[in-house]
This record gives sequence, C-alpha cells and structure tokens, in this order.
Amino acid sequence: MKHRVVILGGGFGGLYAAKSLKRAPVDVTLVDRRNFHLFQPLLYQVATGSLSPGEIASPLRAVLSAQKNTRVLLGEVVDLDASRRVLLLDQGQELAYDTLIVAAGSRTFYFGHNEWENWAPGLKTIEEATEIRRKVLYAFEAAEREPDPQKREAWMTFAVVGAGPTGVELAGAMAEIARETLRHDFRSIRPEQARILLLDSSPRVLPAYPEDLSEAAERSLIRLGVRPRVNVRVTAIGEQGLHVESDAGAQEIGANTIVWAAGVRASPFGEKLVQRAGAKLDKNGAVMVQPDCSLEQHPEIFVIGDLAHFEQAGRSLPGVAQVAMQQGHYVAQAIERRLQGQPPSKAFHYFDKGSLAVIGRNSAVAQIRRLHLSGLLAWLIWLFVHLMYLVEFSNRLLVFIHWGFLYVTFNRGARLITGEATHARGAGLQSQNHDSVRL
Amino acid sequence: MKHRVVILGGGFGGLYAAKSLKRAPVDVTLVDRRNFHLFQPLLYQVATGSLSPGEIASPLRAVLSAQKNTRVLLGEVVDLDASRRVLLLDQGQELAYDTLIVAAGSRTFYFGHNEWENWAPGLKTIEEATEIRRKVLYAFEAAEREPDPQKREAWMTFAVVGAGPTGVELAGAMAEIARETLRHDFRSIRPEQARILLLDSSPRVLPAYPEDLSEAAERSLIRLGVRPRVNVRVTAIGEQGLHVESDAGAQEIGANTIVWAAGVRASPFGEKLVQRAGAKLDKNGAVMVQPDCSLEQHPEIFVIGDLAHFEQAGRSLPGVAQVAMQQGHYVAQAIERRLQGQPPSKAFHYFDKGSLAVIGRNSAVAQIRRLHLSGLLAWLIWLFVHLMYLVEFSNRLLVFIHWGFLYVTFNRGARLITGEATHARGAGLQSQNHDSVRL
Repeated sequence: MKHRVVILGGGFGGLYAAKSLKRAPVDVTLVDRRNFHLFQPLLYQVATGSLSPGEIASPLRAVLSAQKNTRVLLGEVVDLDASRRVLLLDQGQELAYDTLIVAAGSRTFYFGHNEWENWAPGLKTIEEATEIRRKVLYAFEAAEREPDPQKREAWMTFAVVGAGPTGVELAGAMAEIARETLRHDFRSIRPEQARILLLDSSPRVLPAYPEDLSEAAERSLIRLGVRPRVNVRVTAIGEQGLHVESDAGAQEIGANTIVWAAGVRASPFGEKLVQRAGAKLDKNGAVMVQPDCSLEQHPEIFVIGDLAHFEQAGRSLPGVAQVAMQQGHYVAQAIERRLQGQPPSKAFHYFDKGSLAVIGRNSAVAQIRRLHLSGLLAWLIWLFVHLMYLVEFSNRLLVFIHWGFLYVTFNRGARLITGEATHARGAGLQSQNHDSVRL
Repeated sequence: MKHRVVILGGGFGGLYAAKSLKRAPVDVTLVDRRNFHLFQPLLYQVATGSLSPGEIASPLRAVLSAQKNTRVLLGEVVDLDASRRVLLLDQGQELAYDTLIVAAGSRTFYFGHNEWENWAPGLKTIEEATEIRRKVLYAFEAAEREPDPQKREAWMTFAVVGAGPTGVELAGAMAEIARETLRHDFRSIRPEQARILLLDSSPRVLPAYPEDLSEAAERSLIRLGVRPRVNVRVTAIGEQGLHVESDAGAQEIGANTIVWAAGVRASPFGEKLVQRAGAKLDKNGAVMVQPDCSLEQHPEIFVIGDLAHFEQAGRSLPGVAQVAMQQGHYVAQAIERRLQGQPPSKAFHYFDKGSLAVIGRNSAVAQIRRLHLSGLLAWLIWLFVHLMYLVEFSNRLLVFIHWGFLYVTFNRGARLITGEATHARGAGLQSQNHDSVRL
C-alpha cells in the first residue's frame, strides 16, 4: 500500500499541498466540509455585488480531477487519534493516514464578544458574503421606504470595523455602490449621501503597511467618499449601532449595517492538536510548529497556513494566502524527501513577494520589497495578480470579462437580496403578519 | 397629481407592464418582495450548476432606473382596500393607487401534500434552485462516502416528478452532470451510473406538446441516460423515497434526491381579491378576468400572468412568460387609452409564438405554429430566443460566454454546495456531535 497523505482543508494551503504532491508516490485524500476552494481575496466582491459566488469558488473535485493519486472527501473531521494515526469523521467513519497535513485555516473572531456576530457579520465564507450583500442592499431599500429622517439616517450609515486590507476593500466598494452603482436607482433617497465609516483602533488605516502607503490609501478612501476614523475602539455593537471610544471620549453611532473585518482567530482544530498530539498554541490559537512546519512530538503531522504559528526573523508570518501556498508546497516536498530517504529539507523560508490592497477603481497600494506604489499602477498590478491566481481557467476569463463590464458600466449585476434573513435586523422583509400574502 | 399605477410583482407580467408605461403620463410604482427580476426559464440551469443566480436575475432598480416615471418599492403587500383604492404593505404602510395591476404569479403546488416539500423542493425561486443544486451535488458526495451498497444506490437515484418542460430540462441537465461533468471527479463511485427517473402521471413526457414532439423528447432523454416513466402516479414522498402507483401495481422507489416539477398554483393574493374586490377564482386559484384583463366589479384592477385565468378559444391560457408579457403590454395600453378618453381597446388576444423545451446539449423540441422541430435546430432556436430575452445586456453577453465555455468543457463552474441544509435529509453534512470541529 502506498504512503497515505491526508490533508485537512481545501484552502490555499491544503490545495497547494495536494497539487504539489501530484507526482509523488503517495495516496492523497483531501478532506473539506465544503465542496469548493474559495478564492478568499475576492470575497469582498461577492459581498458588494460585483461577482457571483460561482465566480470565485472552484469545485475541489474539478480542480483535482485530473490528479489520479488524489481523492476529495466532503466531510467534517471531528477528532484525531495521533497514536493510531486515524482521523474521525462525522457519521463515525475513520480515515487513516501516514502523514497528516492540517490546513484548517482561521475564522472571524470577535475578541470574546460573539454576540456581535448578530449585528456585524464577518467575511470568511460565501454565506457571510451573501449575508453582507443582503444587508447592504436591503439598507438602501429600507431607507427608500423610511419616512422618519433619523431612522433613515441609520439605514444610510454603514460601519466597517477594522481597516486592514479587507476593511479597506469593503469600505471602498461600498462607497462605489453608493456613489456610482445605485446613483440613479432611487427616488426618495440619494444613495451618494450614504455615510461609510471605516473604524480602526490603530493610528492609521492599513496599519501593517508602510506609513506612506497608509497615507495614500487614506487619501484615496476619502476621495471615494469613505470616512476613515482611526484611534477609535469599538466597545459595543447592538441593534442601534456601535458604541465607540477614543481620546475625544465615548460616542454612539447609529448604524443599521455593520461589517466586521477586525479580527480572525485560528481554527479550533488547533485545540484537538493540543489534546491529542501535544501541540502548543500561541495566544491567537495558532499551532506552534517546527522549522519544517511539523509538530515537535509528531513529525508526521504538519500544520500550515493560518492555523500555523511560524516564526521568521523574530516575527510570526502573517495569515495570508502566499504563506499558506508556499508552506503547502514546502511540506509536499518535505514528504517526498522523507519517502526517498533523503536528509530533511532546510527550514521553511517564506519569500515575501509583496502586499497588495485595493481601494477602488484605479486605486490600490502595493508594497513589493522596497518598492512602494499607489494609484493606477498598483491597481493594475493587483488586477493582474488576482486574475493569474484564480484557480480555474474558465473562472479567470469570466471574471476578467465581468470586471470589464463593471469597469465600463459601474453596473453590479450580482446585487441580489437572497436567502433568509438570519439576523433580526434584516427581518423587516419578512412580515410579522402570518396572514400576509407573499408576492 | 398624476394618475397612480401600482404594479404588484416584478415578474414577466409586472415588468413588461411597467416598461410599456414608460411614456404614459402616469406615476408607476412597482412593488415586489424581491429586489430582482428573475429569468425563470433558466432557473433550472442554476439548479444544475451551469449558471450563477446573478446571471439570471437583474435588479429591478437597474432595469427600471432610466424610466423616470417609475419607482421600485421592496416590500410585501399584505392586504387591499379596493373601496379606498389602497394597498397595505408590511410594517403598516399604505400605498394608494388609481389603477392596480396584479401580477403576483404562481408558486409550487403539492396537491394538498405540503409535507412533500420537505423531501422534494420545487423550482420557483433562487433559493429553491440553490437548494436543489445543493441536494444534487451532495448526493454524489454522500454516495462517494457510503460503504453500504443499498444506501449508496439511494444516493445515486434522482427522481424528478413531473415531465413538463421544467421536469424535462432538469432531468436532462442532471443526466449531463452525471455522465459528463462529474465523470472523472470521483474515485469510489461512477457518477454515470446514476439513475435519473422522470415520473409523470400522463401517458407521455411533455404532455402539453404534440405527440410527435413528445416522442422525440423521450428518445432524446433516453439517449442522455434519463429513464422516463409515464402513467405513474406519485402517492407518497418521504425520507426513504417515493411511493408510486401504476397499472403494473404499487412500488417503492428508494431515492434521496427528489425534485418536484409537477404543479404550480396561483398566488394566494387571488383570495384577497375575492374577499376585497369580489373576484372569482378557478379551481387552480387563478382569478377569472374580463376580456380586457380587469375585474368585473373593479375595472381599475387588472390581473395578468399566472394569477389570471383568461379564456381564449374555449381554453384557459397557459402559465408561461409569453402570456404574462403580452398581457402586461396590453394592460399598459388599455390604461393609456382610458386616460386619453379613448374607447376601450379590443379584448386581449394572445399571440402564441410557439413553445420550446430544451432537453440537453444540441437537443430540444419546438412547436412554432404548425411547425414541429426537434434536435439541433430546435436547440439553436431555444438558445437564440433565451439569449434575446435575458433582460440586461451585460447578463446576456456573460451568459452567452459562460454557455460557450460550458459547451466546450462540460465544466459546470457554479456547482457549489452552499447554504444551510434546510431539509433533514441534507443534514448529514452538519455533524450531530456538538463537540465537532469545523474545518
């Protein structure tokens, strides 16, 4: 029997590990609870109605169907027996491995205030993205119907918490929706008067970027109509809006549409690795790994991507796709070397190709090694890089064409309000009157 | 103040009525509980993963944004006061009209067995389409994981109830998924061995079509791998599958994936028209209308589309988009004539341009007046007609390109399993173990 490699998670880390094992003499099983790989960097475009879910998600089976040594299993891993080298799936099935690659990723984190999720969805899944889309679009509809000026104001106020790349992208896209896409669509309200707040406790937007790029980003955001508010801490989120504190004192912000882009935390599978495989976690729930991404007590278990805490030059690597992809590739090679009886590979080293954050049309910031770019050039690089990385060819071309339309027409075709309102705030659409007639 | 026309429903009837009033000296308000017009004839392509919801839905505001005399209101109409000429919206708001056009459409009907909906979703909404997509795709995933041959068989059996155009289109697309799209994607099962049953109580598929076209459709379906079973009545649907009866006796069919395409019924808003405006319903819940589509006791109320029962040449018109569109156009003209003090227009007359049903790639049937076509030519006509009618230009071209890819590659990019499992059957994905770890 061939050496069995099981990969948990079909995100960037897991998928690239699987692909890099294409020619290895192993049997690969990739397990994920979703049947698709999600191109997370473009998820904000689904949340803001530019792209459809199908355009940024590729079925894992399709991506890996030509790879004969690999099978895909749709399922949830509920436990691990590291001594027997067996995973327990939901419905009681077992899955044995010789080498395990854990790439279970991260999820939205509310710093202990899980109740905030009711009012401020995060942006990690397709469902969250369509929920945000529903909330943003519904807010304009509700404002159009609302006769009371104060309530209307709350519908026309949008707060994005967290001014990292995701928050900046979301706020920029929301401003474009209000100022361009919906401009002529309403009769009672003027969408371009929407207030789009971008809140962060740091002293500047894009705090992980160099200062000059933060400044460029802030200028671009203001030009788009976003109001960045830095040095502001969110202390409560509820039905009426947010409570924030800053040096200027405390303040209530009435906002019916809030999006959470302030934090993620490693997948709880890390705790299973603590209990069953003697792993240690950092304060963010990420698993401390060896220089080859394996666990100290279980060298046959690798942890990569957002779930891994990897130190390089005294700093832990950021939770970005590039790190996960490079670790996936590295771990695949390390496994091949072990099987061939070669000496272990050198420690993993992350090669930082640079960082990109898009703000709006023709506007982005880019840090590529020592080169700092902003404006149109950075935006073109962003466009190019993202198209190149979209996994499937047909997706890539479709998205490209779709973006072309969008660029020329400002017309977001995917701005659909779908699904059940999962949060009380959105329930206005569902009538309380059970006698009601649905059109 | 201008004459106020309120239109209930943004389907084909309501939208075409609104568009036809573009130059009329009236204020138009279109009310719908969804913010988009849905191109229903292609909904089966969403259900089978070919197209994304955004590709067959156009935001009503976008479609009507350039029409200055028209506003769109997102809301639910809960009641009507015909004497005061006022509609009651959810949340207690009132909406006054001088002329009312009711185009509230129809919904899935289970012939009194509403509990069947739990096992056999219909295909009328975007949410139902993505639910069917989830069920169909999940069935193959579950089969891949299932060691027990009998249970696996139930996962590999797909039953479409109702062999009208929708049922035929769904069954044909499912066969293509199994035989082409997923062909190389699994390791334990062979998707092309899936059983796709198409059940109908009539003696032939497409019972509303001429006999020669029914025969052609049946041959095409069989060639695709569908098993049509006619003269079969479904008497029960439950967790294990279906109970059917025919001249050969009763039979249990083990099937975990069932789709209901057997019947629709007019919107319950018809009952409000009975209570409040003295309307009469036919046995299917549709409103009996005058030759000009108005109500006998309330000539200022028009009813069009699936909700209207209109007799022509001794038969009631079918519930198809063509009828609704022509009635919408007719009613708009009738309103203009009244306002100009001209004598009433002639009775509405439906001009039947023909019927089209698609079966699979290169295969459709078409009845255009006395011309009966099947095969490639009918399919090309189908393609042309559907592209021409897609409302928005950008959608049209995108869908065309997308179909081009699909035709060449068989690769259904939108085959995502998304959303919560709303039916118990699909709950396998959600672990019963609350301790479980989600990847």
